[in-house]
Amino acid sequence: MHTLQDVFMRELGDIFHAEKQLVKALPKMSRAAVSTELRDALNTHLEETRNQVKRLEEVFHIFGKTPRGKECEGMEGLIEEEEEAIEENEENAARDASLICAAQKVEHYEIASYGCLCAWAKKLNKDEAVKLLEENMGEEKAADKKLSELAESSINLEAAEEAPEEEVEMESE
Amino acid sequence: MHTLQDVFMRELGDIFHAEKQLVKALPKMSRAAVSTELRDALNTHLEETRNQVKRLEEVFHIFGKTPRGKECEGMEGLIEEEEEAIEENEENAARDASLICAAQKVEHYEIASYGCLCAWAKKLNKDEAVKLLEENMGEEKAADKKLSELAESSINLEAAEEAPEEEVEMESE
Repeated sequence: MHTLQDVFMRELGDIFHAEKQLVKALPKMSRAAVSTELRDALNTHLEETRNQVKRLEEVFHIFGKTPRGKECEGMEGLIEEEEEAIEENEENAARDASLICAAQKVEHYEIASYGCLCAWAKKLNKDEAVKLLEENMGEEKAADKKLSELAESSINLEAAEEAPEEEVEMESE
Repeated sequence: MHTLQDVFMRELGDIFHAEKQLVKALPKMSRAAVSTELRDALNTHLEETRNQVKRLEEVFHIFGKTPRGKECEGMEGLIEEEEEAIEENEENAARDASLICAAQKVEHYEIASYGCLCAWAKKLNKDEAVKLLEENMGEEKAADKKLSELAESSINLEAAEEAPEEEVEMESE
């Protein structure tokens, strides 16, 4: 790895793999959601994510490369967190709140990645790639905002009311 | 895990562990930075991160708990990505660009986590905890912005000029 284009191609492979991992993970998250609105939001984002994978394939072609993913430890860790959120919690609004948090970490991972990719593609004078990457980034930001709105408008309050005064049992050291 | 407070305590343990991992990782990142400005920014953020750990300890105490971390797969994956960025690249501006991207993923992980923790602490009526968590979140957002500014103002351009026309060799499938 020597040049900015090498760094760009590596990150492109990383986010390509990440988005494909997410296409696999989102249906499970969506099925786990208790709130219908959250389920709908995750399903909508699944469709967006499939389109994002196609846009990334175009970006590879703009750089004259065959689309190829690179194993992505960051996203793998985030998806593990999501799976824990599903497995360890009961089916209630608190679990939905936890799912939203896990999903927002994924969105923020992608926002950071696309932010860098857009900045680098500009410096590499690949305007068409910048446009495609900005479209993906815009969708991630909108998905993150939608999740915050769902949490704020209903899910967090519902979760707080499930057991408002309950004390949590946790071993202390 | 049943209530919003359980979910809150779990996420608090996660970010507590994450920040402590970052206190260990940042000196290595800082030493690897070629740009003096990047090195200074990472060192400043190391000091902030140490303070953030202390604020999180206070939040545990507000909830009557002993501070205790929870293994955090998300942050572990992100730190692995940072280490790859250091190990696989030459010491040049392109590596700094790659380091910035890895660091921004970490910042965004934390922004997502603090965003949820703040929203939950509000619903749990713990105003003092909200204040401490918002301070941490504000520092993460400022650190992310500072990294973008460094990339935009100098490092990305310098990286692009290191080998502006060079073609990257990558095996295609």
